[in-house]
Amino acid sequence: MWYSLSQQPINQPTQTPMPDWRLYVITDPRYGHGDALRDRVAAAIRGGATIVQLRDKTATTRALIEQARALLTITRAAGVPLIINDRVDVALAVGADGVHLGVDDMPIADARRLLGPHAIIGGSPETPEDALRMQREGATYLGVGDVFGTPTKPDAGAPIGIAGLQRIIALVDIPVIGIGGITPANAADVIRAGASGIAVVSAVMGAEDPAAAAQTLRHIIDRTRSEVEA
Amino acid sequence: MWYSLSQQPINQPTQTPMPDWRLYVITDPRYGHGDALRDRVAAAIRGGATIVQLRDKTATTRALIEQARALLTITRAAGVPLIINDRVDVALAVGADGVHLGVDDMPIADARRLLGPHAIIGGSPETPEDALRMQREGATYLGVGDVFGTPTKPDAGAPIGIAGLQRIIALVDIPVIGIGGITPANAADVIRAGASGIAVVSAVMGAEDPAAAAQTLRHIIDRTRSEVEA
Repeated sequence: MWYSLSQQPINQPTQTPMPDWRLYVITDPRYGHGDALRDRVAAAIRGGATIVQLRDKTATTRALIEQARALLTITRAAGVPLIINDRVDVALAVGADGVHLGVDDMPIADARRLLGPHAIIGGSPETPEDALRMQREGATYLGVGDVFGTPTKPDAGAPIGIAGLQRIIALVDIPVIGIGGITPANAADVIRAGASGIAVVSAVMGAEDPAAAAQTLRHIIDRTRSEVEA
Repeated sequence: MWYSLSQQPINQPTQTPMPDWRLYVITDPRYGHGDALRDRVAAAIRGGATIVQLRDKTATTRALIEQARALLTITRAAGVPLIINDRVDVALAVGADGVHLGVDDMPIADARRLLGPHAIIGGSPETPEDALRMQREGATYLGVGDVFGTPTKPDAGAPIGIAGLQRIIALVDIPVIGIGGITPANAADVIRAGASGIAVVSAVMGAEDPAAAAQTLRHIIDRTRSEVEA
């Protein structure tokens, strides 16, 4: 089930087109701040990232706002949405395209009320019940994992695997993005499972050459999508 | 210079009345969470707290929202404003009365834009330049200190003393609340210096009997104000 503009009902009221979920790149403070972070994000976009999330649970609000404003100049120029992890206040202050919310963050329903109907609001469900509730409360998409076991969140539970990912994809009607330990070696499996895209942190932001790393993943994603659709 | 409704120009457009700044009580996670925190805040209000700030730099967004909603039922019933430290998103989600922002938090100008003209927005300047900028950007009041040296923020710089407090009071036109190491032994000095109120954390929230502690401070504040005004 692929979401694209052409599948929207023709007479639907004007709405923001669905983002291109294929390669969702998430930042991490361990891979730099300021100019260094901005350069890596710019490289990721050059390589084919279709959506970017600013994630930094340690920064002050002021630093996060400054970082978001800096990234927004890059993402806007590239036509790529910028999503802010957790912080609806930061998203509102800088005019970002949306937020991504886990079960310890603001409830999706509150965020939808504050950000309006056109904002991109993602959720990270931890159970199938979370997934259904987040959809009901107005999530635009779900980031589902940990699929393969991630080095970025070592405190996460056991990986859910491709089977766990498929279970959520079958359960909800909104796009699902696979996350957690996705690399060029297993990205195709995530797309074949029906995910609308893959989300990565280390595989792109931690790569020696983020542009090349993004390009490799995009190539696999696009080729696999062609196979699936054929 | 005391701010009260009676000193507002008579023909001024409708505006939210200035809060009663006299005894500003700030929470701290070290003095409990959930029901325990709520009970201490309720006691502080019974004892005479005129404004309450929820401050918890360690809680998740979800926990902060839940805590804010719980406190709001108490503060609303008592007609006491609830201010959220740092988090404009939490204030918006729960409909709190305002926010308090330090120099590492959202700039006052952004918060004013997001919260509207009637929200209470406080600032914690670290220099006289900060104080003037915060006033210019739309701060309702300033929390100024560390006046006497506080146990709550051990990483703060040297205390500014009564002289430092007076310098800021003379510099700005908005109400100034003294903060930092204020106890029944020195609260009168802060009021005599021209502060519109005193802010405390430990002296009330950390007291064995928060209601009695608040009552003692309110008595000193009110008596000193009567002397000053006489």
